[in-house]
Amino acid sequence: KNILIVPGDGIGQEVTEVGKNVLVKIAEKFGHEFIYDEALMGHVAIEATGNPLPDETLSKMRASDAILFGAVGHPKYDNDPTAKVRPEQGLLKMRKELGLYANLRPIKLFDELLGASSIKPEILKGSDILFFRELTGDIYFGEKGRKNDNSTAFDLAEYSRYEVERIGRKAFEAARTRSKRLCSVDKANVLETSRLWREVIQALAPEYPDIEVEHQFVDSAAMMLIKDPRRFDVVVTANLFGDILTDEASQIAGSMGMLASASVGDSTGVYEPIHGSAHDITGKGIANPLASVLSAALLLDISFGLKEESDTIIAAVDKLLKDGFRTRDIADSTTAPEMILNTQAAG
Amino acid sequence: KNILIVPGDGIGQEVTEVGKNVLVKIAEKFGHEFIYDEALMGHVAIEATGNPLPDETLSKMRASDAILFGAVGHPKYDNDPTAKVRPEQGLLKMRKELGLYANLRPIKLFDELLGASSIKPEILKGSDILFFRELTGDIYFGEKGRKNDNSTAFDLAEYSRYEVERIGRKAFEAARTRSKRLCSVDKANVLETSRLWREVIQALAPEYPDIEVEHQFVDSAAMMLIKDPRRFDVVVTANLFGDILTDEASQIAGSMGMLASASVGDSTGVYEPIHGSAHDITGKGIANPLASVLSAALLLDISFGLKEESDTIIAAVDKLLKDGFRTRDIADSTTAPEMILNTQAAG
Ligand SMILES: CC(C)[C@H](C(=O)O)[C@@H](O)C(=O)O
Ligand SMILES: CC(C)[C@H](C(=O)O)[C@@H](O)C(=O)O
Repeated sequence: KNILIVPGDGIGQEVTEVGKNVLVKIAEKFGHEFIYDEALMGHVAIEATGNPLPDETLSKMRASDAILFGAVGHPKYDNDPTAKVRPEQGLLKMRKELGLYANLRPIKLFDELLGASSIKPEILKGSDILFFRELTGDIYFGEKGRKNDNSTAFDLAEYSRYEVERIGRKAFEAARTRSKRLCSVDKANVLETSRLWREVIQALAPEYPDIEVEHQFVDSAAMMLIKDPRRFDVVVTANLFGDILTDEASQIAGSMGMLASASVGDSTGVYEPIHGSAHDITGKGIANPLASVLSAALLLDISFGLKEESDTIIAAVDKLLKDGFRTRDIADSTTAPEMILNTQAAG
Repeated sequence: KNILIVPGDGIGQEVTEVGKNVLVKIAEKFGHEFIYDEALMGHVAIEATGNPLPDETLSKMRASDAILFGAVGHPKYDNDPTAKVRPEQGLLKMRKELGLYANLRPIKLFDELLGASSIKPEILKGSDILFFRELTGDIYFGEKGRKNDNSTAFDLAEYSRYEVERIGRKAFEAARTRSKRLCSVDKANVLETSRLWREVIQALAPEYPDIEVEHQFVDSAAMMLIKDPRRFDVVVTANLFGDILTDEASQIAGSMGMLASASVGDSTGVYEPIHGSAHDITGKGIANPLASVLSAALLLDISFGLKEESDTIIAAVDKLLKDGFRTRDIADSTTAPEMILNTQAAG
């Protein structure tokens, strides 16, 4: 099995190193032989080659069985809205080229972190949500540009029935293996893409009579996620809404630093923390590597079917937390300074 | 002064009646003469005339000095994505026709409700955010439809410099009267409309050298709002992001049932709760009317410049809460049953 390591930018580099080490150790322990390769993407790739997703990286990706990815981005581009080449273009191109249409974001709270969230423990306890975010359509990939002498900007959102149906099916099938509840989130009272979305999900429902389907507007869902997170089990939504809601939902798990995601589709899978490159803390050794470690666990489970290996990693994270160790983002006023780990030690 | 009352659908009818009564009483107390008229909008207007915003309603709106509005919507349309006539079309047409480009949503937590939120009191205490949501542009108003034999749906998001500039100025000016911090929320790492948005806000900043401007991506803002709401003071954002973030932020104030909004622009102003028509609780007399009461207070302040009258209403709401009275949405396990008010009594 070939695993491609793509650390990307900022803390992506720090946390992915830890994630990779965990893969190396688990392979040793269970007697697997993984072959590793590494490639550039994002700002570091622009610096080296002028291209945020060099052809070499893309071919290595296509040749891989799974990809452990970090993050891309750099403040330089954020503050310059007119920049023509941007790290995020590499990320979006990767998703499109590899056909990674389904982004799974499990939001699960480790019991030990019940107090780390800004949300009350009694509201959170037992929360366990699995998001399916559509990842290769919507306003991310439609035509965009300027017109009227550069005085108007536009972005086109588009969805085809086929695109909604394939992510919808993934979500229905996941709901079968969980609590049999599916919440589809859209803005069908305003958007035509959402009305198509709702039509397709409604049309799929009779094929899954064992699943209870609910439709929510995105504004209301953004509110309910905080008010009563246990209301949600499997959630399926469009690319942009999924981007916003999953970042918001990270607060349910205490910290973004704990959340892994899997992007899957036609071929290889990409596993990455949901956090970004976080240049404000880069180089300080304080980034929480657990999202990358848990991404490695998802990789083993989803791409390689190695459930026991994956569970071993999750149990190790659980034990680390039970033993009282914390990275800074999940520490609180009761955490003793010697229990606060740096990025390396947490791995 | 002419005030047009537009209760709309569902609990809109129940709460707007209470809001209007408060206007009547405050006028009596301060010796003002307001002239009231009433008009139909939304589902009730479709039933009566086939049109969610009848011409008669629109002319009455144009003739008014301010509008106290309830909510529109009906589950019938939500569950039928193919319906051609929808209550929300009336709402959007009203916003566009009246040029209501600035939607102000103050998120202020009454001290007494510190415990009513799902967010921890120590995180919330002192939160006070004023959202400026752009209301007549973005993906709400661009071209939308189906193509490829009805198998693809599309929605076009558009912003012109002029549109961003006028809402930007309102937000900068409001920041001057508050803590001099402005956060602009966009998705400039992906959307061209957001890059234009960021360019325009950046270009305005030198004209307001006393204001500290920060730019945040919408996904990150959705997370930070819950993690650390006090980080925000004045927030300015596009129509769709504003829709999502303000509903989410309602949890900072304990309940959507407490939040009023003002939509202003070229002429008359519209004042309304941020909650919707809530057909699930309609007719039960349990809706919280305070958002409508506080909308009446905003109306007096913003459209009529009657600050003392407005403050009197806010103080009355504060006293009601201090006295321990609650509607169901803001009651908790410690609230005695006899302190739980129905919609009428709370007014
Ligand atoms: C970096 C950005 C383009 C990206 C997105 O919006 O998809 C990120 O926020 C994510 O969620 O993976
Ligand atoms: C009812 C709906 C069209 C509306 C919107 O999305 O603007 C509502 O959610 C609001 O926030 O006023």
